[in-house]
Amino acid sequence: MNNKHINVSPDDLYQFIYQIFCKAGLPEHKAARSAHVLLRADLRGIDSHGIARLPGYLRLIREQRIDPKSEITIEHETPSTALVNAQKGIGLVTAGEAMQIAVKKAEQAGSGWVAIKNSTHFGIAAAHAEIALKAGMIGFSFTNASPLVAPAGGIEPMLGTNPVCCAIPAGEEQAVIIDMATTTVSNGKLEIAHRKNETLPLGWVQTVDGLPSQDPLELKQGGTLLPLGSELHTSSYKGFALGSLVDILTGVLPGANFGPWVPPFVSFLGVRDDEPGEGIGHFVGALRINAFRPKADFLKSMDQWIQAMRNTKPHPEVERVLIPGEKEYLEEQIRNRDGIPVMEKVYNTMLDLQKEWGISVFKSEK
Amino acid sequence: MNNKHINVSPDDLYQFIYQIFCKAGLPEHKAARSAHVLLRADLRGIDSHGIARLPGYLRLIREQRIDPKSEITIEHETPSTALVNAQKGIGLVTAGEAMQIAVKKAEQAGSGWVAIKNSTHFGIAAAHAEIALKAGMIGFSFTNASPLVAPAGGIEPMLGTNPVCCAIPAGEEQAVIIDMATTTVSNGKLEIAHRKNETLPLGWVQTVDGLPSQDPLELKQGGTLLPLGSELHTSSYKGFALGSLVDILTGVLPGANFGPWVPPFVSFLGVRDDEPGEGIGHFVGALRINAFRPKADFLKSMDQWIQAMRNTKPHPEVERVLIPGEKEYLEEQIRNRDGIPVMEKVYNTMLDLQKEWGISVFKSEK
Repeated sequence: MNNKHINVSPDDLYQFIYQIFCKAGLPEHKAARSAHVLLRADLRGIDSHGIARLPGYLRLIREQRIDPKSEITIEHETPSTALVNAQKGIGLVTAGEAMQIAVKKAEQAGSGWVAIKNSTHFGIAAAHAEIALKAGMIGFSFTNASPLVAPAGGIEPMLGTNPVCCAIPAGEEQAVIIDMATTTVSNGKLEIAHRKNETLPLGWVQTVDGLPSQDPLELKQGGTLLPLGSELHTSSYKGFALGSLVDILTGVLPGANFGPWVPPFVSFLGVRDDEPGEGIGHFVGALRINAFRPKADFLKSMDQWIQAMRNTKPHPEVERVLIPGEKEYLEEQIRNRDGIPVMEKVYNTMLDLQKEWGISVFKSEK
Repeated sequence: MNNKHINVSPDDLYQFIYQIFCKAGLPEHKAARSAHVLLRADLRGIDSHGIARLPGYLRLIREQRIDPKSEITIEHETPSTALVNAQKGIGLVTAGEAMQIAVKKAEQAGSGWVAIKNSTHFGIAAAHAEIALKAGMIGFSFTNASPLVAPAGGIEPMLGTNPVCCAIPAGEEQAVIIDMATTTVSNGKLEIAHRKNETLPLGWVQTVDGLPSQDPLELKQGGTLLPLGSELHTSSYKGFALGSLVDILTGVLPGANFGPWVPPFVSFLGVRDDEPGEGIGHFVGALRINAFRPKADFLKSMDQWIQAMRNTKPHPEVERVLIPGEKEYLEEQIRNRDGIPVMEKVYNTMLDLQKEWGISVFKSEK
């Protein structure tokens, strides 16, 4: 398989996504926010959720499963909560708009929690939690997703990779950013293994009959991702519980679809005709720190927490312990300096998209 | 090893704990709540956190590390948040009192979130989340605990087993109750294996040098529990991230101790003299369902969610998929009917305690 990469500048990549989303019908501010969220994935090294997904979003817009122009509405609210109807808007934007509402509520009421229904895929969860982080708050961000994951003890896909995300500010140190699928690995890791022609470690996927598998293409043969914990004797029921919690907060609570009914991202799969809810669901939240404790004290303690964890004795085979989000932070430094490595296949798709949409950010001879 | 058990009635066990806590100096209502929380553990099959821990609490009271009579104070609050100083009160009580505050705030503001410092061990997390459940809300309950767990890629104990707990009401179906250590297994599972003279599965603990171990006594030799995920290639960094999140919300946010500084439950270990905070920390929360969506609609969807998961195709080696909390619910039915099986060793300790405190709930010839 071809592993050649082309390095592109973050600014160019942003412009490229922004201009295409504008041409596809998104108002400028929505195109800007969408480009920002996809770029955050590519900068942080989450290659499966960045530019590689642009064609998928464009297809969903073309098929009117995403409405590029709709505005979210608040269907119900209290001082610290809201239910948002995303009106089929692009999740890259609607989740951030919901988080803005959560931050405003947290300014007034100490915390803000917004459940969102009738939305579409929102990219990486961290991009939305970062809005609370920029406001100096602790941000939470969750979404459900189309079913690829078996319950612990099951073999059918009943849950998405349903990420848990929380961003916590620090003082001198970098923020702690947790953004993790509630499965042992996300689908993106299977794609990377497939591209590199590698077999998978045991504990990532199982066959349609529940047998262990190391095949990166197992999901295409009816297999399923395993919940975090991998096996029952190493507590996969805990990963299942976490994925369930995310599905309930993001799907059941707002009245979105849940479990096996969550509509798929890939456009060649249709939606089920017995949907119990509306669209995909998200749940975002913001906790104002000085609604609990003076912020300066908290930030100082966070620095102490981070330094203690970072300086703990590492395993002999490991250089040092990494704080949650530190790997992605370090990757971001490298990619901001050296550019974002885009697979040649993805780059060629980008050149095709340029021609199709009549823009010219990248040169084909690159 | 002696595996003989004596079945005791839940009512007798409650009376036993209640009367001893009264004699130990707790006001009646605090003794009642404490007895309730320990009994909840024994009823739900979490034997490590019930009556077996009573002597530990009594020791901490005797050594004045728990103040049996102190009252919690609210140090700061907003419409949806509060910081509570537990004043060294018994965590079995203070966490529930904090949850009452959270529920009251949720009634007014849609949600309530209370961070607690200067507290002590709170028993099973689910007992506190159940207060929100009884009020018809979604309840959250977290605590940090003394360090037994290595970070992913580390070999020193830096975190407690830091449970994540969430209780979600349903309609016709039983509530979904998640209550899980963020490690592959809790310390209690090692104790059970030791009692049964069994070796551990791989992935639960490691030696002081980071080597795999199957020894139930490994922690006593300087070894550590592994975060959920067990190994780096099966994403133990995710379990570490979850344990970190719990430590930050419960320790850093309220100004309690955190990470390696969390004071131990066992009284023969002292507290460190460089404590960055006050006591042990908890974080509890309540989400009012109709602050988002009409409650009847939510409960109906929850039933549909539960039935879909329960009826999914099981793995060939598994009878059926269990909903989070279902195993404990089924155990509770059995124990309410047949009594609570108490290990003979624990039962003998109970008889000693009866004599010591001058009460007479159980007969020695039983």
